[in-house]
Amino acid sequence: MDIGFIGLGNMGRGMAANLIGAGHQVTVYNRSPGKAEGLVERGATAASTVAEACTGDVVFTMLADDHAVEAVAFGEHGILAALAAGATHVSSSTISVALSERLTTAHAEAGQRYAAAPVFGRPEAAAAAKLFVVAAGQPQVLQPLSPLFDAIGQRTFVVSEQPHSANLVKLSGNFLIASVIESVSEAVALVAKAGVDRQQYVDILTSTLFAAPVYQTYGGLIARREFEPAGFAAQLGLKDVRLALAAAEQLQVPLPVASLLRDRFLTLVATGGGHLDWSALATLADRDAGLGSDDSA
Amino acid sequence: MDIGFIGLGNMGRGMAANLIGAGHQVTVYNRSPGKAEGLVERGATAASTVAEACTGDVVFTMLADDHAVEAVAFGEHGILAALAAGATHVSSSTISVALSERLTTAHAEAGQRYAAAPVFGRPEAAAAAKLFVVAAGQPQVLQPLSPLFDAIGQRTFVVSEQPHSANLVKLSGNFLIASVIESVSEAVALVAKAGVDRQQYVDILTSTLFAAPVYQTYGGLIARREFEPAGFAAQLGLKDVRLALAAAEQLQVPLPVASLLRDRFLTLVATGGGHLDWSALATLADRDAGLGSDDSA
Amino acid sequence: MDIGFIGLGNMGRGMAANLIGAGHQVTVYNRSPGKAEGLVERGATAASTVAEACTGDVVFTMLADDHAVEAVAFGEHGILAALAAGATHVSSSTISVALSERLTTAHAEAGQRYAAAPVFGRPEAAAAAKLFVVAAGQPQVLQPLSPLFDAIGQRTFVVSEQPHSANLVKLSGNFLIASVIESVSEAVALVAKAGVDRQQYVDILTSTLFAAPVYQTYGGLIARREFEPAGFAAQLGLKDVRLALAAAEQLQVPLPVASLLRDRFLTLVATGGGHLDWSALATLADRDAGLGSDDSA
Amino acid sequence: MDIGFIGLGNMGRGMAANLIGAGHQVTVYNRSPGKAEGLVERGATAASTVAEACTGDVVFTMLADDHAVEAVAFGEHGILAALAAGATHVSSSTISVALSERLTTAHAEAGQRYAAAPVFGRPEAAAAAKLFVVAAGQPQVLQPLSPLFDAIGQRTFVVSEQPHSANLVKLSGNFLIASVIESVSEAVALVAKAGVDRQQYVDILTSTLFAAPVYQTYGGLIARREFEPAGFAAQLGLKDVRLALAAAEQLQVPLPVASLLRDRFLTLVATGGGHLDWSALATLADRDAGLGSDDSA
Repeated sequence: MDIGFIGLGNMGRGMAANLIGAGHQVTVYNRSPGKAEGLVERGATAASTVAEACTGDVVFTMLADDHAVEAVAFGEHGILAALAAGATHVSSSTISVALSERLTTAHAEAGQRYAAAPVFGRPEAAAAAKLFVVAAGQPQVLQPLSPLFDAIGQRTFVVSEQPHSANLVKLSGNFLIASVIESVSEAVALVAKAGVDRQQYVDILTSTLFAAPVYQTYGGLIARREFEPAGFAAQLGLKDVRLALAAAEQLQVPLPVASLLRDRFLTLVATGGGHLDWSALATLADRDAGLGSDDSA
Repeated sequence: MDIGFIGLGNMGRGMAANLIGAGHQVTVYNRSPGKAEGLVERGATAASTVAEACTGDVVFTMLADDHAVEAVAFGEHGILAALAAGATHVSSSTISVALSERLTTAHAEAGQRYAAAPVFGRPEAAAAAKLFVVAAGQPQVLQPLSPLFDAIGQRTFVVSEQPHSANLVKLSGNFLIASVIESVSEAVALVAKAGVDRQQYVDILTSTLFAAPVYQTYGGLIARREFEPAGFAAQLGLKDVRLALAAAEQLQVPLPVASLLRDRFLTLVATGGGHLDWSALATLADRDAGLGSDDSA
Repeated sequence: MDIGFIGLGNMGRGMAANLIGAGHQVTVYNRSPGKAEGLVERGATAASTVAEACTGDVVFTMLADDHAVEAVAFGEHGILAALAAGATHVSSSTISVALSERLTTAHAEAGQRYAAAPVFGRPEAAAAAKLFVVAAGQPQVLQPLSPLFDAIGQRTFVVSEQPHSANLVKLSGNFLIASVIESVSEAVALVAKAGVDRQQYVDILTSTLFAAPVYQTYGGLIARREFEPAGFAAQLGLKDVRLALAAAEQLQVPLPVASLLRDRFLTLVATGGGHLDWSALATLADRDAGLGSDDSA
Repeated sequence: MDIGFIGLGNMGRGMAANLIGAGHQVTVYNRSPGKAEGLVERGATAASTVAEACTGDVVFTMLADDHAVEAVAFGEHGILAALAAGATHVSSSTISVALSERLTTAHAEAGQRYAAAPVFGRPEAAAAAKLFVVAAGQPQVLQPLSPLFDAIGQRTFVVSEQPHSANLVKLSGNFLIASVIESVSEAVALVAKAGVDRQQYVDILTSTLFAAPVYQTYGGLIARREFEPAGFAAQLGLKDVRLALAAAEQLQVPLPVASLLRDRFLTLVATGGGHLDWSALATLADRDAGLGSDDSA
């Protein structure tokens, strides 16, 4: 298939490489140059504009946030302007439900197709084609995309015919990760103040009921107080919780834990920690417990 | 070793059986009769009073709550009165930090030894000797207990020389489980109101970052709305969160998520759901989102 | 002075009447007709378009929400298009900080003046010229407005040179009212469940430390469970709390009580109570305490 | 009447003086000596033991907390031991609902009478006989006390035949004061970060809907950041919120705002502010907003 791929960050590069590896013609584009080189060596064509990446059957976007997606989609010479009638835009970015709804409408009005396919997994999973793809869209839109999702992930979940539902599932997942960070941070502050070793405590959790990647990854960061460099920055955590709350308000669903998380992230950002990993919520739990940053416990 | 075992509920029976299986002389006691029979067939001696179970080197207690432990420990002819000087009381019940501190002091004054060894795991794990034992106490107290812990569990974590720290770790674990129940309940209400299938959503979670027993067990109950019979009743969830908060207040550690959980459990109990499984917090998330109990989503 | 007045609801009519009474030439406009009649009898001129109300020195807007203000300000033939250079738009509506910032910029670019002057007080206070005016803007803009504020209110507070700060103060005031409603609702549920009479309890509060209009008004509604007709509907309460939280997030200020209020209003709206008075938060406190609506206490 | 009065702190001294002024025979007792002198000059008799203050028809207690009341009531030669059958203990201290229930039972078993009569008001109001008395007890117990309540207060509210309900009302009042402190602290942090003057903001509040003593007193302290010396210390605020939550849990009433307050007070105490006035919750709102203590706004 003839595929465009816009957004060559840590995630996008791996996804594009796996599409190439599956035998597709891939035209890649990134706003800041230099990201395409490795992919060109593997057989990709480098586009110098968004429009050049929109000449095939399908174009993926894998970008940082709503603003970036809005710019490439709605901008002059953007995807909506450039994509052929009947061709498909696959949005894999973590964007708002509202933007996904807007894209659904705009592509329909332009005679184009649209699917949302956000992914769960980190850059290593993207490189290894081990992502989990959460896809939503009309069956006739998704059906031909199936081999593409197989090329980038280990499993695809089709959750709805409405594209924005996939974005909601992705945002809810990030909300659940943040809730793990906060509750583990509180528990670690509690036992640490009683003199229990933080790392041993996390080992107990991850050996028992909590033997999941999310507890292993974030429990470890919290125990080691290792918040830099950020794998995912606190200000992005704040953004995603805000997007989850906005989608929930639209649906009239209260999310008390998400409200609490929003206040915690906002406190972290307001006190200078927006650049830290989002697991740095643990610094607030410690601070509020009167635990100094050098408590040996 | 000559061991007494007090409390033959679903957990205690499995633990006592495994101590017998490891070759120890075990004298068992339960307040309500009839629980000891199967164990007697395997070689246990049935005691008709607490005191009769306190004639050996070690006595375990595995009881429902503080009241039950207080009754057998401090009552007339209770453990403190009956246990020999130098013998050890091992408390495996989920009790308050304050009661564990009180037992530490009382046994010391009586010239007896005391260790706390609460366990993580369900009745099946107890039967299969697959529990995780969280032990705390003086090294000279714990060292001879090591083969006993090996007989009932798959792994032992020694967390502190202060017995009550093990109780704190256990309570913090129950707090973390409750926080998973609440946050998953909120997320499920959110995506269900958007039309995503509850069971599929939980499958996505447990296939990805949340591939842990706690998400599998409780996510499944929440998706299936299967709150009876209770594996662990909401009123016990309320009790354990209250005990975690009480211990945290003593240590001056705020736990905002636990405060929220306390209000949710209290609401569930006040509105008639105290007997339901603690995963029935999901009924509150649904109710507050305006989702009826028969929403098909 | 030659004044336009847009928005003749319960508040606007009283304000416009008092401007007429102070001797000004007032041209009034309301989208739905029939509201201007009483004012015309007192000497006002009725405008049939927004633009006709923008021919004087000053134009007031007193409208329901952001959408209404955006429509009359930015619409074709709206205030920005119609107002003379050097003339002043005074926005008295309860609008978002973001919209007030946008109006500040837009009027500046159009060579026009802009001030925010939201008011505290109910329709009776508007009719009696007893409002409290919270004004913000450049000194040279506010100075000539001073007699107008004196005509509609009993006191004017100039809080900032930035217009949007006045909107923030107004939103924060509505947040504080909502927090009184919630905390009094919780306290009433508590004492009522113990058998104390609700009305007597509110009488105790308002006779002592809480002898303020906000406790008298809302305490009375809560005690009498009198939530219809709404003086101020729950869905408007939700909107104002959301606007306060949005402004606070922009400023990086966490507001934990406002987050809790947002969840409570959202619950009330999601369960069918959006049309009730915002004091109907009390129904949630009762419900969560297991108090039926016909508990005699 | 022949009256004993135990507890001669800032509140108790004023109350005892007014009982003397009304013509009663008053025998006063305080654990630490030297407090009785002024009262003796006015005609009181100084008791050197609790029992000596229990020889009349009525004995008041006005003490700091549960521990102090337990000591004088249940101690050897305490009130229960010393008071004549048919005589009445009037408890005016802010104590737990549970202790008030225990006193009800104990006095009944001893053939004595018991009433709870906590008061609202500060030391100046106690001195001026301007307290508000919240009384509860059996009618035949309260009726003869009526002139005594008139001697110490400006108004008496009889709320229940169960003494502990008066304690609940008192605790709920302190909860409401704390909720005002927290919500005003959040609002002040919000507008201050936007550049609005704190004092002017509080003036606006207390000129309008919030013209009540509680906003004037605490709004002023918050605006001036005047947290020492404490009128009422944060650690006492924590205690009273804890007692309100405990009573509410017993009654199965969730109080989400009180839960939030408990966490805030606990944070303040854990970070070294337990001795500050409870209005120092404002330091947390400032801190979490990234406002330094010397922000001029």
